[in-house]
Amino acid sequence: MRKLTSTALCVALLLLVPNGLWAQSDPLPSWSDGTVKQSIVTFIQTVTDRASPQFVPPEQRIATFDNDGTLWAEQPIYFQFAFALARVRALAPKHPEWKTKQPFKAVLDGDMKALAASGEKGMFQLLIATHTGMTTDEFTKTVVDWIGTAQHPRFERLYTDLVYQPMVELLAHLRANGFKTYIVSGGTVEFMRPWTERIYGIPPEQVVGTSFVTTFKLGTDGKPVLLRQPKIDYIDDGPGKPVSIQKFIGRRPVLAFGNSDGDQQMLQWTAAGEAARFMGLVHHTDAAREWAYDRQSHVGRLDKALDEAKGRGWTIVDMKSDWKKIFAFE
Amino acid sequence: MRKLTSTALCVALLLLVPNGLWAQSDPLPSWSDGTVKQSIVTFIQTVTDRASPQFVPPEQRIATFDNDGTLWAEQPIYFQFAFALARVRALAPKHPEWKTKQPFKAVLDGDMKALAASGEKGMFQLLIATHTGMTTDEFTKTVVDWIGTAQHPRFERLYTDLVYQPMVELLAHLRANGFKTYIVSGGTVEFMRPWTERIYGIPPEQVVGTSFVTTFKLGTDGKPVLLRQPKIDYIDDGPGKPVSIQKFIGRRPVLAFGNSDGDQQMLQWTAAGEAARFMGLVHHTDAAREWAYDRQSHVGRLDKALDEAKGRGWTIVDMKSDWKKIFAFE
Repeated sequence: MRKLTSTALCVALLLLVPNGLWAQSDPLPSWSDGTVKQSIVTFIQTVTDRASPQFVPPEQRIATFDNDGTLWAEQPIYFQFAFALARVRALAPKHPEWKTKQPFKAVLDGDMKALAASGEKGMFQLLIATHTGMTTDEFTKTVVDWIGTAQHPRFERLYTDLVYQPMVELLAHLRANGFKTYIVSGGTVEFMRPWTERIYGIPPEQVVGTSFVTTFKLGTDGKPVLLRQPKIDYIDDGPGKPVSIQKFIGRRPVLAFGNSDGDQQMLQWTAAGEAARFMGLVHHTDAAREWAYDRQSHVGRLDKALDEAKGRGWTIVDMKSDWKKIFAFE
Repeated sequence: MRKLTSTALCVALLLLVPNGLWAQSDPLPSWSDGTVKQSIVTFIQTVTDRASPQFVPPEQRIATFDNDGTLWAEQPIYFQFAFALARVRALAPKHPEWKTKQPFKAVLDGDMKALAASGEKGMFQLLIATHTGMTTDEFTKTVVDWIGTAQHPRFERLYTDLVYQPMVELLAHLRANGFKTYIVSGGTVEFMRPWTERIYGIPPEQVVGTSFVTTFKLGTDGKPVLLRQPKIDYIDDGPGKPVSIQKFIGRRPVLAFGNSDGDQQMLQWTAAGEAARFMGLVHHTDAAREWAYDRQSHVGRLDKALDEAKGRGWTIVDMKSDWKKIFAFE
């Protein structure tokens, strides 16, 4: 009787033990065996080993990841920009003036050449027209609707199917080892938050990104709303990334991963820490399974950061050789 | 032998069980029995009870707390302002011009009347002179030094001794029930982060507050720093609180606590949520053990928010009758 009770108690307690303690033999099955995978596994083992001089206490285990091109694909255009184009088409009936006004006309005509000619200014106008002028709840609804239905033109799948399986495994492995995983992205924060928890296991409060100004307003019904204003609050790219890490997290990352020159300062900031640190870059080298691009690309250009990574011995992930599988659906 | 192993395993597993599962019989011993304490205890029981229609999933359990006057005292002046005055005195040898220049002269002469006459503009000048113009690491060091040694004039104790024991118990009780506890304060974020984890159990990444602009700079030695600029980035007070909650957390709180009109919009924003919500105000009613002030106070004025709380049935904590103990040292 006593033994039975004891066994029942054990079973009950086992259910309460965090997942990570029952790690699989290989927590990163989509990574090819080799120096890159080994460097990641060894780093995580070392900083979580209380006997190691490089041990990092759990509360300091902060890991930051860029999103576009690091956790999911970003070609042929940033997915958030695809969302903006879809929103222009959806909103067009309410804006008859767009039929003759650039860059909206180019979007409605499907004239990608004219759209490209509108440059950064045009892109900014499209963002303002589709991402602001509504409440935060209204904007979230448009994101949820789009992300749940829109399809990527090459793969004819949901955009969230284009997350990198090896990185999803790495995020889970880090969390199982006591890390808090953050996104620090040039994309806007409220475009990511509605789905990052479901797709990456990263909750809204751990998503940092570019943002628009919002203002508080008490409605005539006494209900408050937050209104999204047509004004950039903060651009979370390049040198803006260490600034936002300090502002939102207030601790220096122990591990950071990016894929472009926009992540260079985040990696420099991480590298300048006093304890053990890991700096990683995803290098897009697989035109067959994904895309191959770096120094000459308009999207996700990787040039200066690649040189610095090579010079300083940061980890460079060669997608073609280091990832057995890129997408879960392969 | 088998039984021994089973027992040893059980002991090992017990060590892994989160603290909260072994709750004390009374998690809030410094709170007097009564309707206020009961409303808090019942609320937490209800939203964590899977069988309740008001059950809130763990990931949505966000609790936000104002700091000054809600988690620690704020009289006779905001403690951060006491820090600024101390820094002016410490920096004075490097600024001979302050001997004749207001509001610095008033601080150095101990002339509180002239200091008060310098008004908000003077206070802002003191903040800029003492909180900016250095790296983030340098500023943190000055805070750590001051908070570890400076004494409050009335109690002749460390400022961190003036945290409210009942609120520290409430924070711990919330966390034991799966809540993430946040500070959302009008004080500046980097004045709070160096000590909130040790004192409140709230880590730096869960501290939101007023902030100064910082910029990233790569030093000539190749080491990056973040420089604190003499410019306000964001004022986290009044309608700024719901805005910063959305920006930093991206979820609406389930429970929010404040003590002044600067917290009114945070409470309104919390109250407007769809699920079960708890809105609380700390009312300073105990001149003997702490201070008594509300509608007429320059520090922590509580006027409009008090009326709204009464009108809408929000919980009002009467410090004198609802708190058996205010400070741990009593």
